[in-house]
Parts: sequence; structure tokens; C-alpha cells
Amino acid sequence: MKKLINDPRAVVDESVEGFGLAHADLVTVFPDPKYIVRKDAPVAGKVGLVSGGGSGHEPLHGGYVGMGMLDAAVPGPVFTSPTPDQILPATLAVNSGAGVVHIVKNYTGDVLNFETAAELAQAEGIEVRTVLVNDDVAVQDSLYTAGRRGVGGTVLVEKIAGAAAERGDALDAVAAIGDRVNQNVRSMGVALSACTVPHAGVPSFELEDNEIEIGIGIHGEPGRHKIPMETADGITDRLLDPVVSDLGLASGDKVLLFVNGMGGTPLSELYIIYRRAAQRLAEQGVTVARSLVGDYITSLEMQGCSITILRLDDEMTELWDAPVHTVALRWGV
Amino acid sequence: MKKLINDPRAVVDESVEGFGLAHADLVTVFPDPKYIVRKDAPVAGKVGLVSGGGSGHEPLHGGYVGMGMLDAAVPGPVFTSPTPDQILPATLAVNSGAGVVHIVKNYTGDVLNFETAAELAQAEGIEVRTVLVNDDVAVQDSLYTAGRRGVGGTVLVEKIAGAAAERGDALDAVAAIGDRVNQNVRSMGVALSACTVPHAGVPSFELEDNEIEIGIGIHGEPGRHKIPMETADGITDRLLDPVVSDLGLASGDKVLLFVNGMGGTPLSELYIIYRRAAQRLAEQGVTVARSLVGDYITSLEMQGCSITILRLDDEMTELWDAPVHTVALRWGV
Repeated sequence: MKKLINDPRAVVDESVEGFGLAHADLVTVFPDPKYIVRKDAPVAGKVGLVSGGGSGHEPLHGGYVGMGMLDAAVPGPVFTSPTPDQILPATLAVNSGAGVVHIVKNYTGDVLNFETAAELAQAEGIEVRTVLVNDDVAVQDSLYTAGRRGVGGTVLVEKIAGAAAERGDALDAVAAIGDRVNQNVRSMGVALSACTVPHAGVPSFELEDNEIEIGIGIHGEPGRHKIPMETADGITDRLLDPVVSDLGLASGDKVLLFVNGMGGTPLSELYIIYRRAAQRLAEQGVTVARSLVGDYITSLEMQGCSITILRLDDEMTELWDAPVHTVALRWGV
Repeated sequence: MKKLINDPRAVVDESVEGFGLAHADLVTVFPDPKYIVRKDAPVAGKVGLVSGGGSGHEPLHGGYVGMGMLDAAVPGPVFTSPTPDQILPATLAVNSGAGVVHIVKNYTGDVLNFETAAELAQAEGIEVRTVLVNDDVAVQDSLYTAGRRGVGGTVLVEKIAGAAAERGDALDAVAAIGDRVNQNVRSMGVALSACTVPHAGVPSFELEDNEIEIGIGIHGEPGRHKIPMETADGITDRLLDPVVSDLGLASGDKVLLFVNGMGGTPLSELYIIYRRAAQRLAEQGVTVARSLVGDYITSLEMQGCSITILRLDDEMTELWDAPVHTVALRWGV
């Protein structure tokens, strides 16, 4: 294991500290319990948005804290849920009185800990709503969860619900648009190589030299099957078809096409995947109205990618286009 | 070699095609000869900026085409210079009559081919100036070049010279500010792993399981020395000290600190490097006034990073902060 780290147990502490130093204009980092808050939080009258989860998926979630997206992010240890004693103060810190929405990826630990934190916050008089993200079509139930896993769709939920909160939508409305994004978004991923959790020191799973795993999770947890290496176009089809089918996409639909890198894949390869996906969608009469290509929800240094498609309506498109000022997504400001 | 590609010989064609599909709002891609042009080029009265070089360093240079940065990018084959028959039409396409600046990384092939293209353009009556970038302090002369190599500083030259052109500076002034950035910027990199050029199919160099290469080039060409793996803080010091010393940084200086990922390194690790570098600079009385952390000039899937420091003055800071709208850098718009 070669990593740019000091002590494997200090990876999250030191990384988040560096993040805070680099982006002190945008965020405030609280070290213990650890959470990251938008510099100007709480924003008067605005619904607060909090997300979080295990670390190792950077820039998720800290990179999405800022105007038009999250008010706070709560990083757990690598691939491990944050605890209620982190989530609660983050929730309190972003509450302006308008209530707080928790955006939670569907993993058992995250769900339980955000639920506990929500109950504690409610006991202090803060209204909390939860948007559960479960967009991964690869598997039902998995190593870390019951039901579908939350993956790439999370970035889109955070952006669009964040824009709704920023324009002044009330608590239930922000949660409702977050749910609507989740209902209209699906993803599937592939791994070409495993990743190594720093404190474990060995790869999370095994792949032969000529083998890939279709339907991989963002923690390297098992997908649908291992198959021999294929062309990029072949792999794209294997990811795209289940997403399109599960979403029930039809000719005339408008979508956001998001090709995400897992951390160790060159950007040039993501554009080869994008090319095929865009061509296939065009053949089916689906309009790619918005695009996102890059490393937005990663699995440490894993080689691979995921394809996420969001069926857009006019309101979601408008909220996607709304100004955002975070470390990892920024436009209009 | 596992890569998300179809035909190793079609990597650049298909990747650039995908890039064009994903970002048709910003750029136009010409396939043969291949170059990428800002959608609204030539911009009336504005000096045109063209850069280019071998592919495999994405998002460099195509990701920096757009308002406030480059007018055109010319991608060669992987790690191989583009040819004059690509550079010339790109130069013609962005010329509004105010002349064109070529931003060229100091590699023998790039220098020769841009020079030839500049002569051809001048023969057609277009004034061309060249800004040569050679910021790598690791080695004098190397596999691909005489003198110092051009690496991370290139991104900063493109941003700052691009902003100068956008505000209406004349040809010589744009070239002069580009040169000034180059004179005030230094970089050094490290590799933890090699990368594999698709059409070669084998890693470009060898590293033992517990070995890293200090002073690596962006094509995997040799650096200063191979050493046993160290802590992130130790590695940071080995990169930072030669940069600080070569730049002659002194207490009271203001700098832009840029920690760049080589393509296969998790973002979380780059922030661990950033943390140490920022702490060390603070101890030396140097103010980090601006920061950039992420994969901006890469070497395919190489694991590793580079540290780039630019000594800022007020004008460079203002031009760095000026609005930019490209695929890979965007703010203020």
C-alpha cells in the first residue's frame, strides 16, 4: 500500500484539516466532533441542508458545502458512518429556525445514525426531514445496506435540493424536491481495480488481471458479477441499459447524464464512456440536456466509473442551473 | 493493462469527441486536424490564446478553453506533441486581428512544432508571441527536453494570461504577463506508481512496492532519485523545499499554493499534502493568499502529486480572481 498519508488512523483528521486550510473562505471545519459548516451558516430564514457519510468518497460531501448546496457535511471514518454526536451539532449549527433536511445515502449505519441525530434535534425543537438516496440499480441489499444503495444520485439531490433551499422553499418543499430527484435518478458502476482502506492496508476485494466487476458499490462491496475485461463501449452498455430500463426512459425524455470517476481513472477515459452513453441515448430519442463528467463521488483510488441518469423536468433543470459556490461545484457566482 | 478504452489507437479521437459532446455549449471540436476552439472564437479585438501538447494530462489543455482562459487547445497523441498542421488552423481560428499568443510547455517536440506553426501563421500575416513555460525545478534537461520542463505552472500561466487577454490587453502585454507568471512559478512532483500509455500497453517505468520517485516528470520521465516510501509530511518537505528555495521566497511574500494530483491519487491525500505545505509556508512567514487543490495537470492514472507555488503580486492576484468559464476552472460567471 503506497499512499500519501502519515498515520493511517489520522487520514481523515489531517485531510479535513487541510481542506479547511485551503478553503477557509467558504467553510469552517470543527475538528472534534468533526463536521464542516458553510462559512455564513446559519443563513437567516433558510432551510439548512446536512449530509454526510463515510470518508473516502471525496469531494463528497465536504466539497459540496456552500451557497446553493449543503450547509454542513459530516465526515465519518473511511467507509464508516459518522456518529450522532457529529450529526447533531452540525444540524444545530445550520438551523436558522426554518428546519433542517438530512440527505442520507441508504446504508444501514448512515440511516441509523442520522435517524438518532434527527430525534435528538427534534427533542431540542428543530424540525428535521430526511431525504433517503437509493439510486443504485445494481443490487437489492448488499454488504452495507438493505435495499438499494445511494451512489451518484446523491450529488444531484444535494445540488437541486440545495438550490430549492437557497431560493427560499420551506422545509417540506425542500424535502419533496429532494425525494423527487431521488425518484427520477438511477446509477450503476464498474470497478477495474480495488481500493485500499488506509487502516486496513490491503485491497478490499480481489480482481484478476483481466477481470472487472459490474455493479460495484462505492465501498468496493460486491456488484452483480465479475466478467472478463471488455471495451469501453461494451462496459458502457452494461451500465447504461439497466439504468435506462429501470428509469423507464422513453423517446422525448430530457436527462442529465453524469459520468463519474471512482478516483483512479483518467478523465480522458470518462469522456470515452460519456461519448458512447450520449450516442446510445440519442439513438433512443432521449435528449441529454445537461452533463457532468469527472470525479464527484469516489472510492479512494479505485479505477472505474459509474453512470448516473436523472430524468429532468423544468423545475429540476432550473434548480440545477441555479448559482452554486462550493469547492467542487461552482457556477453563476 | 485495464483501461476504459476501445482501440488504444483511438483513445484521443474518442475522448476528444466525448468532450465535445459533453461541452457543446462551451467548445467546438474539429476532428481532423484535431483542435478545440472556444465556441465564440474569434472574439473581436481580443488577443487569441492557444496552448496544446501531448494528451494524457487532462483536463489540460482542452478543459481550459473558454471565456477568460484559452481560445484554443491542440491535443497531440498521448504524451506526444501536436503537429504544426493542427496548431496552425487553431491559431487562424482564434485570430481576430489582435494577434495570438502560444503558451508552450518546454518539451523539445512542442517547442519545435509550435515554432513552425508560428512561422506559418506569421507568413499569413498573423502576429504570434510565444510564452514558454519551464517551472519544474526537479531537473535540468530530461528525456523530452533541454532545460527545465513545463508542468503545473502552465495552468496558472493560462489562467492569468487568459484574464489579461480577456480584459483587452494588447499582444505584447499578454505575452509579458505570461512570462512574468512563468518567472515567478516553480513546481516539483512525486510518483508513487507509473502510468501506462495505451498504445504501449506496459508501464512507462518501474517502481518497487516500497519505492517512490522524487522529481518525476508528467510523462513519467525520470526525476531526481528513487527513494523508499515516506510519510506524506516527509514527501511534502522534499517537494516544497526546492520550490521555495529556487523561488527565493521570503517572509512577507504572498503566494498561490497549488497541490496537483497526477490522476490516480485520492483528493483526500492531496489535502494532507496541502496541510503540511501550508503549515510550513506559514512558519516561514509566507502568506498563502490563493489555493488550488485537485487534478489539473495529470499523467493518465499515475499515483502521485506535484506542488506548485506562484509568487503573487497585486496584478496577478486580480487576474487570477477574474471570471473564468471553462470546463475545468469556472468562477464569477
